[in-house]
Amino acid sequence: MQLSLSLEEVAQIVQAKEIRGRTAERVRGIGSLDTAKPGDLSFLGNAKYKPQVALTEASVVLLPPDYVGEPKANQAFLVLEKPSVGLARLCSRIEQLLWPKPAPGVHPTAIVAADAKVALSATIGPLCVIESGAAIGERTYVQAQAFVGRGARVGDDCWLMPRVTIETECVLKNRVRLQPGVVVGADGFGYEFIAGRHEKIPQVGTVVIEDDVEIGANSTLDRARFSHTVVGEGTKIDNLVQIAHNVVIGKHCIVCAQVGISGSTTIEDYVVIGGQAGLAGHLTVGRESKIDGQTGVNSDLDPRSFVKGSPCLPYNLEQRINVLRRKLPDLFRRVDALEDQLKKTSASA
Amino acid sequence: MQLSLSLEEVAQIVQAKEIRGRTAERVRGIGSLDTAKPGDLSFLGNAKYKPQVALTEASVVLLPPDYVGEPKANQAFLVLEKPSVGLARLCSRIEQLLWPKPAPGVHPTAIVAADAKVALSATIGPLCVIESGAAIGERTYVQAQAFVGRGARVGDDCWLMPRVTIETECVLKNRVRLQPGVVVGADGFGYEFIAGRHEKIPQVGTVVIEDDVEIGANSTLDRARFSHTVVGEGTKIDNLVQIAHNVVIGKHCIVCAQVGISGSTTIEDYVVIGGQAGLAGHLTVGRESKIDGQTGVNSDLDPRSFVKGSPCLPYNLEQRINVLRRKLPDLFRRVDALEDQLKKTSASA
Amino acid sequence: MQLSLSLEEVAQIVQAKEIRGRTAERVRGIGSLDTAKPGDLSFLGNAKYKPQVALTEASVVLLPPDYVGEPKANQAFLVLEKPSVGLARLCSRIEQLLWPKPAPGVHPTAIVAADAKVALSATIGPLCVIESGAAIGERTYVQAQAFVGRGARVGDDCWLMPRVTIETECVLKNRVRLQPGVVVGADGFGYEFIAGRHEKIPQVGTVVIEDDVEIGANSTLDRARFSHTVVGEGTKIDNLVQIAHNVVIGKHCIVCAQVGISGSTTIEDYVVIGGQAGLAGHLTVGRESKIDGQTGVNSDLDPRSFVKGSPCLPYNLEQRINVLRRKLPDLFRRVDALEDQLKKTSASA
Repeated sequence: MQLSLSLEEVAQIVQAKEIRGRTAERVRGIGSLDTAKPGDLSFLGNAKYKPQVALTEASVVLLPPDYVGEPKANQAFLVLEKPSVGLARLCSRIEQLLWPKPAPGVHPTAIVAADAKVALSATIGPLCVIESGAAIGERTYVQAQAFVGRGARVGDDCWLMPRVTIETECVLKNRVRLQPGVVVGADGFGYEFIAGRHEKIPQVGTVVIEDDVEIGANSTLDRARFSHTVVGEGTKIDNLVQIAHNVVIGKHCIVCAQVGISGSTTIEDYVVIGGQAGLAGHLTVGRESKIDGQTGVNSDLDPRSFVKGSPCLPYNLEQRINVLRRKLPDLFRRVDALEDQLKKTSASA
Repeated sequence: MQLSLSLEEVAQIVQAKEIRGRTAERVRGIGSLDTAKPGDLSFLGNAKYKPQVALTEASVVLLPPDYVGEPKANQAFLVLEKPSVGLARLCSRIEQLLWPKPAPGVHPTAIVAADAKVALSATIGPLCVIESGAAIGERTYVQAQAFVGRGARVGDDCWLMPRVTIETECVLKNRVRLQPGVVVGADGFGYEFIAGRHEKIPQVGTVVIEDDVEIGANSTLDRARFSHTVVGEGTKIDNLVQIAHNVVIGKHCIVCAQVGISGSTTIEDYVVIGGQAGLAGHLTVGRESKIDGQTGVNSDLDPRSFVKGSPCLPYNLEQRINVLRRKLPDLFRRVDALEDQLKKTSASA
Repeated sequence: MQLSLSLEEVAQIVQAKEIRGRTAERVRGIGSLDTAKPGDLSFLGNAKYKPQVALTEASVVLLPPDYVGEPKANQAFLVLEKPSVGLARLCSRIEQLLWPKPAPGVHPTAIVAADAKVALSATIGPLCVIESGAAIGERTYVQAQAFVGRGARVGDDCWLMPRVTIETECVLKNRVRLQPGVVVGADGFGYEFIAGRHEKIPQVGTVVIEDDVEIGANSTLDRARFSHTVVGEGTKIDNLVQIAHNVVIGKHCIVCAQVGISGSTTIEDYVVIGGQAGLAGHLTVGRESKIDGQTGVNSDLDPRSFVKGSPCLPYNLEQRINVLRRKLPDLFRRVDALEDQLKKTSASA
């Protein structure tokens, strides 16, 4: 990150109320109090880290008004009501530097079908392919080497990063952000076993991705058999996640990396699924449920369930069993001892 | 899916023997009896759903000749011997609409080496790269942005979807279908630990994919160390699956999403592997075996094995142990009680 | 592999000291002693396979000087001090045939920003995108359809295979090899839950990949929140691995396929992580630790730990518990029996 901001520029961006001390260093990075080095900016986001402020090597530190203490030599404190808000302002400035808004227009090397509809405010990057009948909305950025198939519709303010693939007829609503390599609309995995061979069941449905969804790098979402695989508004999906055909994910869910959700399973709103968890097909996971990492879900879950293990149990029970499991060697010894003792008792009786 | 078919068109496609009732709706989608809405076609595929026919909102319903009952207002029943066959006919028509057969030829933006052999009936999409010595068979469709490396051979009637990568010298036989982002022929993961460093073991073998194989989005298949990593005829592999070097998969297997198969393991014919299962290296899995989801296989499996758990056990034993596992808190209490009781007995003796 | 070498050519490449016997076959492949066929070369790499030499169908066999025995008709033995070194020489020759060094230069279809710095000795393949401010080092090969984002820096002698994505400002040092489809620098998965929605936490750090790292096909490495996600020198990562934001991996580690490492976890040097293992966030894994396949790590690990299971335990304990676990049906019967017996004892008392 080729960040380089003077103390004054930083003070202005974060909207500091007061500057204590001075530094000749330009801000070139951001770090936590304990890892920051000269040239870094740091911040006190949580009162429990207060003692670290006096020790930090950061050149600039964002602090709340109630912080008592003075900067070291060649160090500056920027005082503002909420350091975390100041930090967010700075990050958002850096984001603009890293990913400046591209100019609207279609790169001359992009292959856009004559009957595709690309909004005038949209940007189509180099070497993209936009097939026949596809539509790209206002201010949407289709980055380099992405593919938007026949009749697919991408809404407004979306960002498709390099090498994203949107297959035929799939739909992205607004403000959808797809990291590099995401595949939306691959065929569902459905076969009928006939005369010793797996015959393909046509997968002629689509995928619908609602507003404000983000999907991580190289994740895959399969098209439905007939109707729609759906990812609900505001849901965030991490990298290398597999969403099978006809899955319906509700609103504002969190799906961590390498999760797999099998066909026709429904996830209600506000569900959180930990990394590498696997869900069988045709299940319903009730709203606000939490599924721990590496968990295997084989049956429906009530709303607000919290489960762990493979096959899963209620979280607290699973944790308790895991503790007892470690005592199995001891338990076997105890049962051996009981048997011995009883044998002796019987013998002596 | 911009499907729009009149009742008469549908009747013709599914080869209906009889039309009962009428609908003004055009068929714009397909749904199960309980989820279909006006404008949808539905079907009675399994006699147990018969009661749903009277309740469905579908505009058109495919029914067998023995179904007794009349359509509602603005609803039509299409009667035919096997509704499932009619449905398959309709789906196959929709498939043609979604993915019309591309015209043969090489897109002007594709980079095809002068000495690559592309059949005249093949289609090479925009922005593909076909390297030196590669061969593409009759009627094969290499879709946008795919890569076929030096000397790779792709047979007849294959379909490589966008952004598929076939590395140097790998071989696809006929009717192979690869979903977007598949990588065939990445280096096997082999190193020797010499003087504190991992030195690469050259991976100079290839991958051979036999007839009628399908592989899901972003799955990866590594090239062999010397010889061939093989996927047998008719085997179907889901998304995000990892096939390591020198793995040999037999014919007509099913490998679900996110499975990982380690190096040099052999899978015999008709094996089914559930999602997220992991197999260690240098194993043999006997024919017709079933491996449950999330299972960990660390030893050879006899033909027709059915295993579950990590490390895996016979399915029924694992299920039984899982039931008993939940009773561990109770078992510990029972052993506590036995010890107490025996202490008292001893004391009183 | 269109390998075709005469006996004399092979003898020269492997630097054989002596040729015993003759074969008219040209060497067209390599195989182990038990699988090699006419036209294959094989080798005695481990003395325990000596009996296989007399049985092998290989046309050419590499043998150590102390091997006693004569070749069959139409078979040749090549004698050299270390057959494994000869084999390595042959493989390295085959590698040159499979992947000849590309000529330096930028392919006319690559899109290279005017202010990107590409070394004169580097090769940029067809349909690559190199964005503004990016730098490509000496002799580095950026293969077809790869993407190098704004300000990213790729060092010397790297090899980015087809469709690799390097996002904005990420850094690859020297001799880094990335298999097809790798994504370096996707956004970290960080959200704050505010007023019922997940608000994105900007991810403005980068990824730094040190010398001699290799990363497998379709693996994903997320950029740090502020600072750097790091992969240390000489570390080898397999396919479909997920490295979350702010993870720091030490030197000379091995990370097998489908492993997931959650945010801010630190892996020290010489750690080996088996396939499909998952690590929670904010942990430290001590140097030279081994984590078995499918293991779940939820707490810090001391140096030289060896763990297994989910949640993990020391390897030997976990193995012992797995043995006892299989005896649970028996243990429950034994406790039943004890209770019965004690009931009788009490009754008779």
